[in-house]
Amino acid sequence: MRSEKEILDWLRARFAHRRARGLVVGIGDDAAVLAPRPGYEYTVTTDLFLEDVHFRHQWMGAREVGYKALACALSDLAAMGATPRFAFLSVAVPRKLKGRWIEDFFLGVGDLARKFDVALAGGDLGRTPDRVVADVVGIGEVERGRALRRSGAKPDDAVFLTGRLGLARAGLEVLLRRGAKRGWLRAAIRAHLKPSPRCSIGRYLVSKAIATAAIDISDGLSTDLNHICEESRVGARIDANKIPLPAISAALRDRLGLDLLTLALEGGEDYELLFTVPRVKADRVAKKILGVPVARIGVITRRREVVLVAPSGREVAMRPLGFDHFR
Amino acid sequence: MRSEKEILDWLRARFAHRRARGLVVGIGDDAAVLAPRPGYEYTVTTDLFLEDVHFRHQWMGAREVGYKALACALSDLAAMGATPRFAFLSVAVPRKLKGRWIEDFFLGVGDLARKFDVALAGGDLGRTPDRVVADVVGIGEVERGRALRRSGAKPDDAVFLTGRLGLARAGLEVLLRRGAKRGWLRAAIRAHLKPSPRCSIGRYLVSKAIATAAIDISDGLSTDLNHICEESRVGARIDANKIPLPAISAALRDRLGLDLLTLALEGGEDYELLFTVPRVKADRVAKKILGVPVARIGVITRRREVVLVAPSGREVAMRPLGFDHFR
Repeated sequence: MRSEKEILDWLRARFAHRRARGLVVGIGDDAAVLAPRPGYEYTVTTDLFLEDVHFRHQWMGAREVGYKALACALSDLAAMGATPRFAFLSVAVPRKLKGRWIEDFFLGVGDLARKFDVALAGGDLGRTPDRVVADVVGIGEVERGRALRRSGAKPDDAVFLTGRLGLARAGLEVLLRRGAKRGWLRAAIRAHLKPSPRCSIGRYLVSKAIATAAIDISDGLSTDLNHICEESRVGARIDANKIPLPAISAALRDRLGLDLLTLALEGGEDYELLFTVPRVKADRVAKKILGVPVARIGVITRRREVVLVAPSGREVAMRPLGFDHFR
Repeated sequence: MRSEKEILDWLRARFAHRRARGLVVGIGDDAAVLAPRPGYEYTVTTDLFLEDVHFRHQWMGAREVGYKALACALSDLAAMGATPRFAFLSVAVPRKLKGRWIEDFFLGVGDLARKFDVALAGGDLGRTPDRVVADVVGIGEVERGRALRRSGAKPDDAVFLTGRLGLARAGLEVLLRRGAKRGWLRAAIRAHLKPSPRCSIGRYLVSKAIATAAIDISDGLSTDLNHICEESRVGARIDANKIPLPAISAALRDRLGLDLLTLALEGGEDYELLFTVPRVKADRVAKKILGVPVARIGVITRRREVVLVAPSGREVAMRPLGFDHFR
């Protein structure tokens, strides 16, 4: 594909063949037009996905880049308890990348979009001098006044976490060392390359009206829990023994030089959900929701400190040591 | 400012001090929450603004970059006839740029946002290895079913154009040659650096219900008129003598080596509006709308060819020779 128009025509033929509910005008006009559903609000998130910052060609093909870029945005919508509805993809590529790259990128976007019934509603295309630049806008809908915010956690609320933390970062470490792609390693690499946004859990929490706050773990537990506590003006006390870590043998762990608890606290990119539930309702939270394990890992406190009770029993401050682009 | 959190705190203090109507959750959560206004639809556009593609530091300061990046997005909303309401700014900068750069960038965004009462509702921040990357999401609102599309032009409709075409590109040519910043040159440079989105004209067209189609001239008249014709499955016949060109003396034109008609047809970045009006209503379109000159430059035809009647009287095909990143 050579011209912008040819790429757009391909996108329209591939992605706009069926009308999505609420999408009045899609790809091909100055802007998309969305018709809101009465009684619902829109949630809007944007996520940059940049070459040599968020991914490298060396270990991610175009299709995986498209998939993961959208996954990050859908995870933000999941954390709001919203149903993802529309995506807008801005992507610019260097001339040296073959025409197939953009096509494959959008095929990856489509792979995940189909799973969640998300319509590609617009975006922007361009060239860059050398590195791929992508920005994904995700728009979801949620019942009016029901979005899960970071700011609603209250003292005594129980803290819950979906899935396991640290696998995605372990996968990245394996990729950095060009590790063999088998067994546990393959699962770790997959966790890094193709995360699963927890949209159905987010929707479950809204439908049951039990969560007071929620966030997705994109920057590591320490950073994201601190976000919740800061926005809610509370503290938290987390039991390190209760944080679900990936199942990996001590031998392999040593060989890779990984400390799993550190990966969970600081690794990031797991895209699991952390949410808080009032103590009186906490027993109603099942150990598995829609097939996903859910662990109760601690409690929200009035005192504004985020504390980790280490496996040794010692209490340490859990500082936000996860990912920060500007540090 | 060092950490992402410090930048976010600064943005929230500066931009989120007053609540915008319809903005339920703004900067600082996983996603923004927007409450739609009954009877209205949302229009959504995204625009990449990349260093060494859309701008160079050499002639654009951070504040001008922020201003223009938002202007491009608002122009798309203007072309839909929407009132701009919310902006989401994704921006990543190389480490070598001082902390002030991001601050100044957002001050520029704020300069224009204030003019149009647009709320900064979210975005993403990041680092890049070397060049600035920005993506602006603009969200506007328009009465249900009233958005101005590219696809509504009908044979015999009159074709109108706001303002003058070519000045922005002339300004770029001056900047490329490091021309003196005075008189006409200053106006040209200003047109390139600080375009004025025609939002009030877009709203006027919707309120009067006279336009059948509209587009903003971002890639040059030839390309954007061809978009209208393609989407509407029609052709057009444009009188070159009626295209308003910048007032510039023949002497200066020769010295700069500029052909004004070519700049108008292929230059781009003028962000004027082109719109079509049924013949029976065309006489109602004033020569000036809200202080902006409006010219009737041609007619939509059933025959699917876009034709320019040159000053010599000769008819030539008006091919889309404006900007295309992929050519």
